[in-house]
Amino acid sequence: MIRLSVFYPSAEGATFDHDYYRDKHVPLAVKAWGLDGAEIDKGVDGPYVAAVHFKFASPDALAAAMGSPGTGDVLADVANYTSIAPVLQTSEIVE
Amino acid sequence: MIRLSVFYPSAEGATFDHDYYRDKHVPLAVKAWGLDGAEIDKGVDGPYVAAVHFKFASPDALAAAMGSPGTGDVLADVANYTSIAPVLQTSEIVE
Repeated sequence: MIRLSVFYPSAEGATFDHDYYRDKHVPLAVKAWGLDGAEIDKGVDGPYVAAVHFKFASPDALAAAMGSPGTGDVLADVANYTSIAPVLQTSEIVE
Repeated sequence: MIRLSVFYPSAEGATFDHDYYRDKHVPLAVKAWGLDGAEIDKGVDGPYVAAVHFKFASPDALAAAMGSPGTGDVLADVANYTSIAPVLQTSEIVE
């Protein structure tokens, strides 16, 4: 299994609409990529104001999702909830 | 639910023993804190060479775990698998 985590680093003056993220953006990504769901984090302490974790069956499944037609809409939607440039991490889930 | 994520940033010359981490360190932390388990990431692409995610029922449960007698052993064990200073993130799991 592959985890795609997207992190939003906190920064002076940065904005992040947690409600829009939960209600609109993450569901848009989940639908575009044909996933069952995702786990959303609201930062309490540490470098990130928010994060999301998506799981894919394989590196190929992740690559197929990123190349799917809906990905453009997902990326274009980022400006609707934050001024922060997201940081992406791809990992193999060891256990 | 609260997620405690621990990230290990990749750096020139840094070392990380993924086998020791999976087989010894994370089980030590899980036992010390009375958890059911944890999710371990092995970095494929992005800023982190490894990460782990622990779930706690509440902020109080997290604080109690951090203050428990076993936490000292967990922290002292870090030098056995990596030269990297871990980065901690605490988050509320939104969904």
